[in-house]
Amino acid sequence: MNLVVVGTSWITDMFISAALETRLIRFLGTCSRSTDKAEAMNLKYGGEKTYLNIEEVCMDADVDIVYIASPNSLHYPQTKKALLAGKHVITEKPIVSNMREMDDLIETSKTSKGLLFEAITTLHMPGLEIIRQHLSMLGTISIISTEFNTFSNKLPEYRSKKDPNELSLKFSGSTLVDLGIYNVYFVMLLFGIPTNVHYFANKGFSGVDLSGALIMQYPDKIAVAVVAKDNHGDNRTLIQGENGYIKVAGYVNTLKSIEIVVDKERFEFYVPNYPNHMRHECEAMFSCIARNDRQTMFEWLDLSKSVTEILQTARKDAGIVFAADSKND
Amino acid sequence: MNLVVVGTSWITDMFISAALETRLIRFLGTCSRSTDKAEAMNLKYGGEKTYLNIEEVCMDADVDIVYIASPNSLHYPQTKKALLAGKHVITEKPIVSNMREMDDLIETSKTSKGLLFEAITTLHMPGLEIIRQHLSMLGTISIISTEFNTFSNKLPEYRSKKDPNELSLKFSGSTLVDLGIYNVYFVMLLFGIPTNVHYFANKGFSGVDLSGALIMQYPDKIAVAVVAKDNHGDNRTLIQGENGYIKVAGYVNTLKSIEIVVDKERFEFYVPNYPNHMRHECEAMFSCIARNDRQTMFEWLDLSKSVTEILQTARKDAGIVFAADSKND
Repeated sequence: MNLVVVGTSWITDMFISAALETRLIRFLGTCSRSTDKAEAMNLKYGGEKTYLNIEEVCMDADVDIVYIASPNSLHYPQTKKALLAGKHVITEKPIVSNMREMDDLIETSKTSKGLLFEAITTLHMPGLEIIRQHLSMLGTISIISTEFNTFSNKLPEYRSKKDPNELSLKFSGSTLVDLGIYNVYFVMLLFGIPTNVHYFANKGFSGVDLSGALIMQYPDKIAVAVVAKDNHGDNRTLIQGENGYIKVAGYVNTLKSIEIVVDKERFEFYVPNYPNHMRHECEAMFSCIARNDRQTMFEWLDLSKSVTEILQTARKDAGIVFAADSKND
Repeated sequence: MNLVVVGTSWITDMFISAALETRLIRFLGTCSRSTDKAEAMNLKYGGEKTYLNIEEVCMDADVDIVYIASPNSLHYPQTKKALLAGKHVITEKPIVSNMREMDDLIETSKTSKGLLFEAITTLHMPGLEIIRQHLSMLGTISIISTEFNTFSNKLPEYRSKKDPNELSLKFSGSTLVDLGIYNVYFVMLLFGIPTNVHYFANKGFSGVDLSGALIMQYPDKIAVAVVAKDNHGDNRTLIQGENGYIKVAGYVNTLKSIEIVVDKERFEFYVPNYPNHMRHECEAMFSCIARNDRQTMFEWLDLSKSVTEILQTARKDAGIVFAADSKND
């Protein structure tokens, strides 16, 4: 299976590295508007071909899998083109900007030869299963608090009234959508779809959320997600129950440091993460492609859809509108 | 100055101990419906007199200061009686159940010979000033998250459909009002009165909040307070800024473990807390009485009023109604 990547940022770099570790794919080449950047990536990982745009990738019959890590607003149109060309597509989170795009991609994937995936580490991390298996030890759970604070090096640019992609509503930039998506997946994978969603945002000059607090309300529990690109936090996730709590230190995209405290006894889990944590999702998605497992694919797309709906509801609640929201195809 | 306490719970015990440490008062006696309990408290701390009700305390000319730590709903009527009798009154937090009671107490205190205080440790802890002095090091602050989770030993009783005072709407029991009041004070003392307040509650059979998440929104920042009596948490408070964060480990009623992380450099403060942390508030209030400092007293009552208003707004948002809310005097 030949892999081509779209985009040349650090996450693409990390993805290729993880992909090669699985030994399930061959790295074929890189698509970028900048041929220099594409060639540099190819040089680093042994790619052969460069592409200037998604159309060139689609036309190359040697391409089996396309990994898309362009600015968020381009995920949908590029993904759709690659799917229609019969490629397998792995799109970096967030796979889409809104529900309209999500519904369309799911429809498209039903008739495409290619499989479609949202690249979201949380779903595939060993820690998720460890947590799931120990939830019942906590007794009745009533509070989940989870955080994703990463200071953006684009913030100074934004503060000087420029509009860097990562924080631009034109490119579907949003701290909640970009970072909070991990927290939403985490909570939803463990506790299902919330009854109510509210988002309180600290907005910048353009109306984008630089940080905020998301409330996911369930009949018997409340989850709070704090997300920020405009400050430094001490990232931690807690699941609080009648008998004790489970604590994840650090980010919920890796879930690598997990402890449980029940009846005041503390136990730290061994979490068998690969050093490159993206290898877990790569193995899961590549093997799914290898066995052409469309059922699993649609189950995962269902999760993507639920998460997209939560994020869209949250954005609506806080009045955060993407350029993509007003587009018609 | 002769002190009489109303109530015989652990907090009264701790208060008398702290009060005696200040060497500013003499412990005169205890008021309780149970003479046995009153005598036991007197025996422990050298009190002489017992009283069956607040009226007996009011009639005793030897009493200078009354400390009230009865169930929450009784704070207001007992405080008012003692004030009208010309006593100095220190009422355990929450000083009142709602704004009507607050306004009435402030009016009453204007003409009373006695001074009036809400006993709230946070206001008087050395850690508060340490944090205040270092806030500017964080640069622009956008997120504050603070927690107060203490599993209630009354929860099993509540779960079996009884209505223990601490969790009873009849007695103005509420997890937010009882525990979250510390978080609200903490946030308000540092950042002032929020623009918007929302409270999301996990309610029990009676409609009382067993846990919940409070949002305090400011024009440029958001504070989230998680409170719980129905689970175990890992209590922590974070103030997150562009340059780093201040972290308080443990509860915001003691503020005894404080660190600052700026530009990835970590520094832990020395916090000069007394072993009995209530001694700080005792010193502050007793010395205020000793110098008859009504100006400071009214400044503190203004804070009590602001906090009462925030709590009342939050309760209204979540539909939590106390019996005291529908009473007319």
